[in-house]
Amino acid sequence: MTQETTGQATEAYRGKRVLITGGLGFLGSNLAGRLVALEASVRIIDALIPGMGGNLCNIDGLQGRVEVAVADLRDPEALVRALDGVDVIFNLAGQVSHIDSMRHPLDDLGINVESQLRLLEACRARTPEARIVFTSTRHLYGRPERVPVDEAHPILPPDVNGIHKAAAESYHQLYHRVFGLPICVLRVTNAYGPRQLIQHDRHGFIGWFIRLALEDREITVFGDGSQVRDFVYVDDVVEAMLQAGLSERCLGGTYNVGGSQPIAHRDLVALLIELAGSGRVRFVDWPADRKAIDIGSVYLDSTRLRQAIGWEPRTPLREGLARTLDFYRTRMACYTAPAPSRWEVA
Amino acid sequence: MTQETTGQATEAYRGKRVLITGGLGFLGSNLAGRLVALEASVRIIDALIPGMGGNLCNIDGLQGRVEVAVADLRDPEALVRALDGVDVIFNLAGQVSHIDSMRHPLDDLGINVESQLRLLEACRARTPEARIVFTSTRHLYGRPERVPVDEAHPILPPDVNGIHKAAAESYHQLYHRVFGLPICVLRVTNAYGPRQLIQHDRHGFIGWFIRLALEDREITVFGDGSQVRDFVYVDDVVEAMLQAGLSERCLGGTYNVGGSQPIAHRDLVALLIELAGSGRVRFVDWPADRKAIDIGSVYLDSTRLRQAIGWEPRTPLREGLARTLDFYRTRMACYTAPAPSRWEVA
Repeated sequence: MTQETTGQATEAYRGKRVLITGGLGFLGSNLAGRLVALEASVRIIDALIPGMGGNLCNIDGLQGRVEVAVADLRDPEALVRALDGVDVIFNLAGQVSHIDSMRHPLDDLGINVESQLRLLEACRARTPEARIVFTSTRHLYGRPERVPVDEAHPILPPDVNGIHKAAAESYHQLYHRVFGLPICVLRVTNAYGPRQLIQHDRHGFIGWFIRLALEDREITVFGDGSQVRDFVYVDDVVEAMLQAGLSERCLGGTYNVGGSQPIAHRDLVALLIELAGSGRVRFVDWPADRKAIDIGSVYLDSTRLRQAIGWEPRTPLREGLARTLDFYRTRMACYTAPAPSRWEVA
Repeated sequence: MTQETTGQATEAYRGKRVLITGGLGFLGSNLAGRLVALEASVRIIDALIPGMGGNLCNIDGLQGRVEVAVADLRDPEALVRALDGVDVIFNLAGQVSHIDSMRHPLDDLGINVESQLRLLEACRARTPEARIVFTSTRHLYGRPERVPVDEAHPILPPDVNGIHKAAAESYHQLYHRVFGLPICVLRVTNAYGPRQLIQHDRHGFIGWFIRLALEDREITVFGDGSQVRDFVYVDDVVEAMLQAGLSERCLGGTYNVGGSQPIAHRDLVALLIELAGSGRVRFVDWPADRKAIDIGSVYLDSTRLRQAIGWEPRTPLREGLARTLDFYRTRMACYTAPAPSRWEVA
């Protein structure tokens, strides 16, 4: 019973017109599937920028049941069309690779900052009543001063991506406060599950490790693998987003969406190899460019969200990983097409 | 003795090749004059965007003694030329109007964020040894949780301009930490003095009030004028910048540059009218768009900078205002040309 409703009845989405930005990506497509099952009217806008998380395979089975616009949020006409008549916006579009943001900071600025500002300006002008759930990231806490990290922790962005996500989050908080847009911000920890990008190693490492395990390859862990992280299964994130889109208590708030069991990298890899029945581990020194933006051990305190909407992560890591491995086993071709050496803005 | 050297001997600037971004603006042009007096080799890059702080009158008397490029930092070729051979960069370019940032947020993004990222990327590639002093603002503390505000206070940007200045500041901190660029960040409170824009009322209110007083017009104060601010005279800011550009202790740090005497708006206006011998005050209700981004009482704690480089504000408010009034009395034509209804990117 992994999709158990923890707060308000998600049946409230029946007939609602929902826009998902970045809806062909990992979180967005899982959300889209759930919303279709809840009989919402689902529209997706996604730029499908090569090397990023968008993948048409992610909506296999939803053809004809979701409306898809392959377009950039920075395209004013596409944005106007996407917003037409929407009740709820799940705002998930973004560049998520930390290392790419350091290599191509101006591209990251356009995708993660300019796009968000254009979206909010358009919402202010056209859909001021539409609920907005913005998915931010635990990444903007940087190398934490304390763990678990709660929402009062200072924002210490460790890289360009963190700076840009912090700016995007601040826009959302501001547009709620000053213009009254009904917005809730979720800071999501490391998410994992079906439909995550596993094409290259520049997104979250967990997807990449899953691929390596399934292909019976060597998994490289930096340092001694003692750094601790928390992981949240995608269905749990989807549940948090659905609740946040309905809850009045969420409005204007910023909430951590953390995992249940913090775990060291080395233990995560061991569990993954055990569940996959393949793969092996090797420990190596930190590469300089990754070490420079590493953040040590970090995991979130989600108490605030539990108190606001009753949300908790429900899927144990072992169960979530097993389901994820099952998903990719039959769909590797869709998710392992050759990766571009870098992403480019179409 | 207002230019007394508080820390390292500013004679060290003799012969140094210095670039001032935004060098035709208020702080930049005052700094340029001082650096010329110190026999530095001074280059200015300034986009002279209409309605912003740049004004060729600001370098009256420096003709032939400074090199001026009227160009935008987002122009890659102009940027490369500007950086050629520089030892120290005083990075002052920016859009400073809070209200304009809310009306034209995408323009503010280009000027205050994209420009800064392009500059730092160019410095990383071309002038990694050049010292950089970035002038940030107390504005990014937003409506403070406590006063005086020290550097550990949370960043709570109250408007788009604050979000963008916070991002620009974060870039500087990051490029120091990750790429080793020698950078010091100064968060300057309300500065005032000769060469400040007084063309319209969308920059700091103090310049506008000075103009109104000199023109014997009515000065409008929002609310009861009880909100308290601190003010720092431009020569003191210049001194802080000069010291920051020399001090090893500053590197990687972020420092408040505050004023000496926090004062209520109504008392400031009374002092100004007394010194000018003209002008009058009227109290009115807050306009909605200004109230929405108002930050209440705020003044800074500059202890950290005093401990690092011995800097303190030295110019009493009464003396600084009197000098400022004297400056504008003979130069009003240069500073009161009709204001554009808004600034535009050339």
